Amino acid sequence: MTRVQDVYPDNRVSLREVGLRDGLQLVKTFPSTSAKQRWIRDEYGAGVRHFEVGSFLPAKTFPQFADVREIIATIAALPGAHGVALALNERGVNEALASGVAEIATVVSATEEHSQANANRSRESAIANVKRLCDLRDASAHKPIVNAAISMALGCSITGAVDPKEVLKLVDKCLEAGVDFVAIADTVGYAGPKQVGELTKAAVKLSGAKPVCVHLHDTRGMGIANASAALDAGARILDGSLGGLGGCPFAPGATGNVVFEDLAFLCESKGFATGIDIDKLIAVRSILRSEMPGETLYGGLARAGLPGGAAAHAPA
Amino acid sequence: MTRVQDVYPDNRVSLREVGLRDGLQLVKTFPSTSAKQRWIRDEYGAGVRHFEVGSFLPAKTFPQFADVREIIATIAALPGAHGVALALNERGVNEALASGVAEIATVVSATEEHSQANANRSRESAIANVKRLCDLRDASAHKPIVNAAISMALGCSITGAVDPKEVLKLVDKCLEAGVDFVAIADTVGYAGPKQVGELTKAAVKLSGAKPVCVHLHDTRGMGIANASAALDAGARILDGSLGGLGGCPFAPGATGNVVFEDLAFLCESKGFATGIDIDKLIAVRSILRSEMPGETLYGGLARAGLPGGAAAHAPA
Repeated sequence: MTRVQDVYPDNRVSLREVGLRDGLQLVKTFPSTSAKQRWIRDEYGAGVRHFEVGSFLPAKTFPQFADVREIIATIAALPGAHGVALALNERGVNEALASGVAEIATVVSATEEHSQANANRSRESAIANVKRLCDLRDASAHKPIVNAAISMALGCSITGAVDPKEVLKLVDKCLEAGVDFVAIADTVGYAGPKQVGELTKAAVKLSGAKPVCVHLHDTRGMGIANASAALDAGARILDGSLGGLGGCPFAPGATGNVVFEDLAFLCESKGFATGIDIDKLIAVRSILRSEMPGETLYGGLARAGLPGGAAAHAPA
Repeated sequence: MTRVQDVYPDNRVSLREVGLRDGLQLVKTFPSTSAKQRWIRDEYGAGVRHFEVGSFLPAKTFPQFADVREIIATIAALPGAHGVALALNERGVNEALASGVAEIATVVSATEEHSQANANRSRESAIANVKRLCDLRDASAHKPIVNAAISMALGCSITGAVDPKEVLKLVDKCLEAGVDFVAIADTVGYAGPKQVGELTKAAVKLSGAKPVCVHLHDTRGMGIANASAALDAGARILDGSLGGLGGCPFAPGATGNVVFEDLAFLCESKGFATGIDIDKLIAVRSILRSEMPGETLYGGLARAGLPGGAAAHAPA
């Protein structure tokens, strides 16, 4: 059994590359399997160890994740690398368990309105799904890590403001259901650092010895500031995507996840060693550029290079 | 005499639009005087009250500031609006005093190396210049506010790291010379929020009843996170430029100042009322786009709109 502290030690920050899943959720074109594999191997070479690699959603609707099993195998072959796959229902969970993926992520909407509109189920039914996932995990041979993300936790595309008490109730229920940790997701990038800090602090307290992940989108340019607040509040797992790849279905033209390389710089600047070589990480952007020429890549480090360093000063 | 607390009340945050000076420092083309006036009037209409409007540098070298006196007059005609102009030597200071501008800003480099390379003078001589500026201010009829910015205060394009003790010594000397307040400038965008917070806190302590300004560049994507840290540490004057207009002479391709509209959103999200209508502010970008089509404008709010609001969702 993989213990969550082995994968996400509580004395350091773990940065997860979620570009291969969340970043590809909305793209017009997506990389070939071999390009995804180069993306992973090159980031691994830069020191990245945590990857969200895809989801077990119907391949007809999400062809970008049809190769999820191959990508999981790619990660499994890299010593110390950790792969995460998303599964939203029991069919997906069973496929994820059968794939041998090291971690299964699932989602509960923070608001009843979004849960019904987006997943066609109540929050209660989503929590039951989390419980079922944990039971199946317990019955499995390799017992993957399970995490539940509370989507729209800091603002909802339907209701607007979200009551943090409601979110914390869901966090509690997910922990009770047996997840290894909970992720707080600002799915539509509504929040500022004060709100992120306060909710993260409460979630950290509720989680006890379990880590807390904060999953941020840079929709309104607050991504890095929010990540900084999340770190200050005790989050030790943060998600990002290379070049901020991805978008937001509820804000056309908006950026995606927090820029991974800027996130690494933020952590280092705050004294959290990430083990990531930022120059090498920036170089991986070339794979995304050639595979998805229509996607805008963001990021300050890629433009300006490391302070006083010999990093590329060319716009990228 | 204008008292600094009337212009920058200590119970609120004052956001200064520095795009008309710092933002225009490096641009390939610059707006006509009438376009600058529309820029100011439209931002004033959006609630902005503080503008850095230009500098008294030789018009031969900096033709973008040749109309600085007209722009100062434009500001003076708007009730409650406050104009700031930069002056780096005694000739400039005398011209600034004669212009009747409400505030004169000057600069001291944090490092001896940068002071010599950039201004061809020692830091001691720069401090003497600050003292001379304060004496001339005292002898003037309208007694403008004087501020001194410590440039490269959080990292230097020549020396790299900067000793905060050296910066605080310069802050102290500027305050002793009689400035109304000091600005801490991350001129090349080297810093992360921890460093910004620590230096700001120390500068706030040294400044006593005088406000502290923090002037940030978004060179490496840390601008908003650094602004958040500066606010937490007690800074109550923050600079930004619409669309992040501007660049960095030491990092080609890099962004300029913190994006003004995102900065306003940050402040509001932290509970600091700015009096700024962000949607109206975003609309002012059209002036910059048409006057300077070659400049990239940045910003999350302009792309995504206000959360749950009716803001423009079109990419801009």
